Amino acid sequence: MDLNGIYQSIQDDLSQVKESLRSIIKVDFPWLSEQLDYVVHSGGKGIRPALTLLSGKFYQYNLRYLLPMAVSVELMHTATLIHDDAIDKSMSRRGRATIYKLWGEEPAILLGDYLFAKAGEFVSDTRCPRVIKLFSQTLATISSGELNQFFGAYNLKQTREQYFKKISGKTASLFCLATESGAILSEAPEKSIKILKDYGYYLGIAFQIVDDILDFIGTEEELGKPVGSDLAQGTLTLPAMLLLERYPEDNPVKRTFENRKDRDNIQKAIELIRNSPIVDECYRVASEYSARACQSLSGLPENNSRQALFALAEFVVARKK
Amino acid sequence: MDLNGIYQSIQDDLSQVKESLRSIIKVDFPWLSEQLDYVVHSGGKGIRPALTLLSGKFYQYNLRYLLPMAVSVELMHTATLIHDDAIDKSMSRRGRATIYKLWGEEPAILLGDYLFAKAGEFVSDTRCPRVIKLFSQTLATISSGELNQFFGAYNLKQTREQYFKKISGKTASLFCLATESGAILSEAPEKSIKILKDYGYYLGIAFQIVDDILDFIGTEEELGKPVGSDLAQGTLTLPAMLLLERYPEDNPVKRTFENRKDRDNIQKAIELIRNSPIVDECYRVASEYSARACQSLSGLPENNSRQALFALAEFVVARKK
Repeated sequence: MDLNGIYQSIQDDLSQVKESLRSIIKVDFPWLSEQLDYVVHSGGKGIRPALTLLSGKFYQYNLRYLLPMAVSVELMHTATLIHDDAIDKSMSRRGRATIYKLWGEEPAILLGDYLFAKAGEFVSDTRCPRVIKLFSQTLATISSGELNQFFGAYNLKQTREQYFKKISGKTASLFCLATESGAILSEAPEKSIKILKDYGYYLGIAFQIVDDILDFIGTEEELGKPVGSDLAQGTLTLPAMLLLERYPEDNPVKRTFENRKDRDNIQKAIELIRNSPIVDECYRVASEYSARACQSLSGLPENNSRQALFALAEFVVARKK
Repeated sequence: MDLNGIYQSIQDDLSQVKESLRSIIKVDFPWLSEQLDYVVHSGGKGIRPALTLLSGKFYQYNLRYLLPMAVSVELMHTATLIHDDAIDKSMSRRGRATIYKLWGEEPAILLGDYLFAKAGEFVSDTRCPRVIKLFSQTLATISSGELNQFFGAYNLKQTREQYFKKISGKTASLFCLATESGAILSEAPEKSIKILKDYGYYLGIAFQIVDDILDFIGTEEELGKPVGSDLAQGTLTLPAMLLLERYPEDNPVKRTFENRKDRDNIQKAIELIRNSPIVDECYRVASEYSARACQSLSGLPENNSRQALFALAEFVVARKK
């Protein structure tokens, strides 16, 4: 099932989320409007706001609170991407130039801050102290996770445990916020809140592993950015870790980290990974997490949204971009 | 009266604020602990948390909520300074190396984000949707104000109105948040909330004008950073605007903005301003705002805190650093 199919039951509400995102463009400063306009039309998949809305469909579908929450998670996601691009000096994302490339790093920092602030305004409209606190805790987790990744860059000695902690911080935490807040705002019982939080966690881990695979096997057109970006930034992901385990001595990943300017080694690592069982092995790990996400749903009432969450868990593993 | 005298009635509670700030050092990541430790011991004047506590002393002094609010405004202030230093590439602040200088711009971005998040966690502990929303709105005002300053840098054509709008966004807005939230959390009537918000606004404007004066007449030791930093960053402040008005043709401010590498012109501007009535004129404007801050207090109950707020309004104009 494609995303349109998965989103069918929340299509109208997702349109309202997009409408709210567009409404923030209207500000006093013309250059800020221009940047916001660019950001809002960047064409993300909208998985995080969809997760909030779908997670809110099992009990009281309080759209009045679920809508600002959905807008808030998307804005937080956008803000973190803008800061990440400034940190990584990334030139393209989703096939377009980044804010960093277009305006420079200073506006990227401030625009990110502005979007965190707008995200905070929307989450305060939920009037729910519990999700407001979760929102801030998630931002703390994401930024300390990114700091962790930054200071751990170009380090070949990374355990599986450290890898999972890293992707949990940078990706799964926001998926958790999206699902858990949807559950809380729909007045779900604690047991169901826990189920949806777990679903978000497992889905987020699967999503990031697939992201890490696609960074090696995708095309630049599909990825919207150069292939092998993670290695170029010194980030050790699961496929690269498995390649290091297979060839511990003479290894292009090792050589890339030792000689950061040499793009040839990145190309060699990409080719070695593509032509080895490593890709399949990584997909097996991603599928395990996707399966755990689905299993966790069994404790929820059967409805359209549960079907959509099942389909989404399949989608994140099957996607090509 | 010095700050210790002004803070006397809230000394114990300010110690608790510092204790809370220190508590955030205890985190999982050692390098983050190191940075946080450095930030928490940076020796700010603590005016913003003091404003929250003093503003909370006119009705119900709900320390349970005022404390996290005071911590939150100080954390937001610290986070904005860390981002500002990364944007301005400032090497020193308060006589110490900046986070940007010590660790680089990437950790500065992420550490700022982390502190915004912690500020958000503390403000959510107030459990008051109104101040939580104000908190986010203030961050939006500050970051869009900084964006405004960034895109308006090296522009000689700035009206008084634009100058006041700029310092209102970057400084007075956070002073307002500090006082208004203190009033709201102490269950003050709307009229008193408005009075304390106005006081915060006028005090913040006076504070920033004095900052802008000190940037020309202070010593590097007093300022904790190089003299003339504003001009070096292309920021047109009140003293420089007045100098431009006096000598519209051949002017060192103009030459600085036209030839950014030439430090000689900054030195000439500093000397011209120091040896002219411009300094007195700027102080007159600052004193007017300080007086307005004091006048606005007349509608509040007479107590120690009102005396302290009066004294603080005098202090911000008389201070040397």
